[in-house]
Amino acid sequence: MFTVRVETPGGHYPIHIGAGRLAALVQSVPADATSIVLVTNTTIAALYADRVETVLQASGKPVLRIVLPDGEQYKTWDSLNQIFDALLEQALDRHTVLVALGGGVVGDVCGFAAACYMRGVRFIQVPTTLLAQVDSSVGGKTAINHPRGKNMIGAFYQPLAVEIDPDVLKTLPAREISAGLAETVKYGMIADDDFFTWCETHVAALRALDDDAVRHAVRRSCEIKARVVSQDERESGVRAILNFGHTFGHAIESGLGFGRWLHGEAVGCGMVMAAELSHRVLGLDRTIVERIRALVAAIGCPVQAPDLGVQQWLDLMRVDKKNQGHQIRYVLLPELGRAEVHAVADERVQPLLSGQ
Amino acid sequence: MFTVRVETPGGHYPIHIGAGRLAALVQSVPADATSIVLVTNTTIAALYADRVETVLQASGKPVLRIVLPDGEQYKTWDSLNQIFDALLEQALDRHTVLVALGGGVVGDVCGFAAACYMRGVRFIQVPTTLLAQVDSSVGGKTAINHPRGKNMIGAFYQPLAVEIDPDVLKTLPAREISAGLAETVKYGMIADDDFFTWCETHVAALRALDDDAVRHAVRRSCEIKARVVSQDERESGVRAILNFGHTFGHAIESGLGFGRWLHGEAVGCGMVMAAELSHRVLGLDRTIVERIRALVAAIGCPVQAPDLGVQQWLDLMRVDKKNQGHQIRYVLLPELGRAEVHAVADERVQPLLSGQ
Repeated sequence: MFTVRVETPGGHYPIHIGAGRLAALVQSVPADATSIVLVTNTTIAALYADRVETVLQASGKPVLRIVLPDGEQYKTWDSLNQIFDALLEQALDRHTVLVALGGGVVGDVCGFAAACYMRGVRFIQVPTTLLAQVDSSVGGKTAINHPRGKNMIGAFYQPLAVEIDPDVLKTLPAREISAGLAETVKYGMIADDDFFTWCETHVAALRALDDDAVRHAVRRSCEIKARVVSQDERESGVRAILNFGHTFGHAIESGLGFGRWLHGEAVGCGMVMAAELSHRVLGLDRTIVERIRALVAAIGCPVQAPDLGVQQWLDLMRVDKKNQGHQIRYVLLPELGRAEVHAVADERVQPLLSGQ
Repeated sequence: MFTVRVETPGGHYPIHIGAGRLAALVQSVPADATSIVLVTNTTIAALYADRVETVLQASGKPVLRIVLPDGEQYKTWDSLNQIFDALLEQALDRHTVLVALGGGVVGDVCGFAAACYMRGVRFIQVPTTLLAQVDSSVGGKTAINHPRGKNMIGAFYQPLAVEIDPDVLKTLPAREISAGLAETVKYGMIADDDFFTWCETHVAALRALDDDAVRHAVRRSCEIKARVVSQDERESGVRAILNFGHTFGHAIESGLGFGRWLHGEAVGCGMVMAAELSHRVLGLDRTIVERIRALVAAIGCPVQAPDLGVQQWLDLMRVDKKNQGHQIRYVLLPELGRAEVHAVADERVQPLLSGQ
């Protein structure tokens, strides 16, 4: 097992990475918890819920299971309320601990429910998708979507612990692996050009879920994310660079309807667009843009932006949380391995959005 | 003007108390705010919204007005979402500042919206009811109700400032004054027997909104609340004493349907019940119980508990946020001016609930 530590004003906690962590989950349940609530989705429930429930019952505490529908389109108030209804029906108290067993949607909804239930109860992240393991389970961002924008309603709320068991990735569909690899290679682009090169040479091993390759990629991703989040929990500065590709990506998800493209797929395509914009605005070397495009394609993500119409693109990007006033701000790369936030006038972005 | 300071891990901020603060509001708007959103309700909008909007426009920033329906029964997800919809329709960014102009419901809903919009924007409390001025606007508790319990969904989220203008109380109905006095006299009961005695001798002046009496009562209430909240922002210990009368009170509000009794009325009656329970469990002197009952009656609040049926009383109180496991915990008075939290077995509470 390997441990990465996150140290934020909102909480200090370990990320445990290791095969078999699922079976060791109960170690992260605090002694004073009065009950445990396992929050998962229909897909994961069928695969792992019985096993995890048995593990948690070893604590001697009552365990309640809540199963949400599966998919980004369910990252809504209705799912959040399904959790509140179940907790209140059982009159569960403030010393309840929630366990988010699933991908980014389960983690975000369960985490936001933990942030709000009785003004805050504790929770543990147990990410079961590659995307959640390398990104969404770390750093305390929780949220639900609003019809006008992704993750618009949420909280910064840190978990007690993140428990990552790479073994669970073996039941993931290939499309989910590709989506998770998009966030993985992102860390190379924004913060570590050596890791980017390593990813280029290990694409096949990563897609085949080779144990050593996956372990290294998850660990390096968590290390970079933990470092950035520890510097800036509430995204008032450097944390925004983690949003590389997300300004375009969120617009794709929202514009096509949540759930059509996986989040990672939209981010993959968004990173290619952001690299292209980096070339036009900051003069990022053309060969780097092409390496980024090639790597996104190699991991199995789309590199061709959908046609949302220029006006809809801009309207959707204008509700991005990074914006100040009505200027759209983008995370751009001055060079491989380094990212900055820049406001860019709509006129300079329009050609890119119309496919030119 | 008098200033009370609140110092919590979640934020340090001033409570400004003084006639004319409404006209000085713009002083609390930070220079880097990109826009200001005035959140109020239909009743307050008719009285003060134009005036306050003009004051805020002096900042030179765009001002948006959101008017919620008036009443505890609207402290819901729908009202919260009315705010989110309006903010997102205008694509307002993270540097937006919300201003809660109204009573406890507006403050709680607007504060929770600020806590969640884009994972947190800044807000200012401008309480217009006595209850909000002495209690709910101070300390960062924000929430909406759930059909199964009051304030079950919310956040600890501190405002930038609390601006209290006692002049606005002059337009309040007498019933609202009585409800606000319930939370005022509570501070005497739990933390300051001299203030309790002062309240006993100034009931008439307070109900008549005598300037000096109101200023003293608001200031002393804010001082006590600020001290308690600064010691324990997240209610893991001493802050729970502020809930004196609220275990019974919340059950009344929820059992009769939110909005039937005003929150302060339910708390007034709840304090009489809690005083009686303090006598039975901790031996609080019978004369103190009678002084509490007499003061609650004198301020114009009910002292006779509604008949909810013993089982419904207990079911409603079991979802109280103070509880641990399934034991109901009550704030009780060992003596006048001092409060403690005690778990009390249902059998000992039942006679009280059935009117014996």
